[in-house]
Amino acid sequence: MSYFANTPKPPYFAVIFTSTLVNTEKNNRENESSYDEMATRMVELASKQPGFLGIESARQDLGITVSYWSDLESIKQWKLNEEHQSAQKLGRSDWYSAFKVRISKVERDYNL
Amino acid sequence: MSYFANTPKPPYFAVIFTSTLVNTEKNNRENESSYDEMATRMVELASKQPGFLGIESARQDLGITVSYWSDLESIKQWKLNEEHQSAQKLGRSDWYSAFKVRISKVERDYNL
Repeated sequence: MSYFANTPKPPYFAVIFTSTLVNTEKNNRENESSYDEMATRMVELASKQPGFLGIESARQDLGITVSYWSDLESIKQWKLNEEHQSAQKLGRSDWYSAFKVRISKVERDYNL
Repeated sequence: MSYFANTPKPPYFAVIFTSTLVNTEKNNRENESSYDEMATRMVELASKQPGFLGIESARQDLGITVSYWSDLESIKQWKLNEEHQSAQKLGRSDWYSAFKVRISKVERDYNL
């Protein structure tokens, strides 16, 4: 299994989502586990959306998730997805202390 | 201290660098430590380059580093930086089992 998203030749779009989770002191194990479940479910759900090209993720103090999409309309529809909207609401109220979303157009890529 | 890059109003550019490190069985502690030193030094050096806007980084199995730049010319100059070129060479030969670089233009952002 590859950790890399197998994206096509550019151009395509990248949603760079960076986040920090709420302090675990204020939080609890149960909440952490439900966060992980939600995150896994969202990857599963996103991968079924039209225009989805792949996703890459890592978390230390900062979490970075980059999802790749064929076009801006697909990104918009994913944001409006009903189950995703519920997760976004929980994210804002319960899980994230801060996040930033950047919508970008990949113009060029290369690899080793 | 914030883990988030304090980027200006878009448009600006993002270099999404995803990588996996060589197997630590084939590697050794000393090599790992020199990788960490190199990575720290590269962040320090990048932050002094013209057009540098910020950097965000996380590593689990996959490493994701996103650096932000004001324009494509600054990205090109950073790639050509002499000390960075040496690090890139070592990265290809010793540290990375694979990597992907994606150059993208951030068109929109929002945050919590």
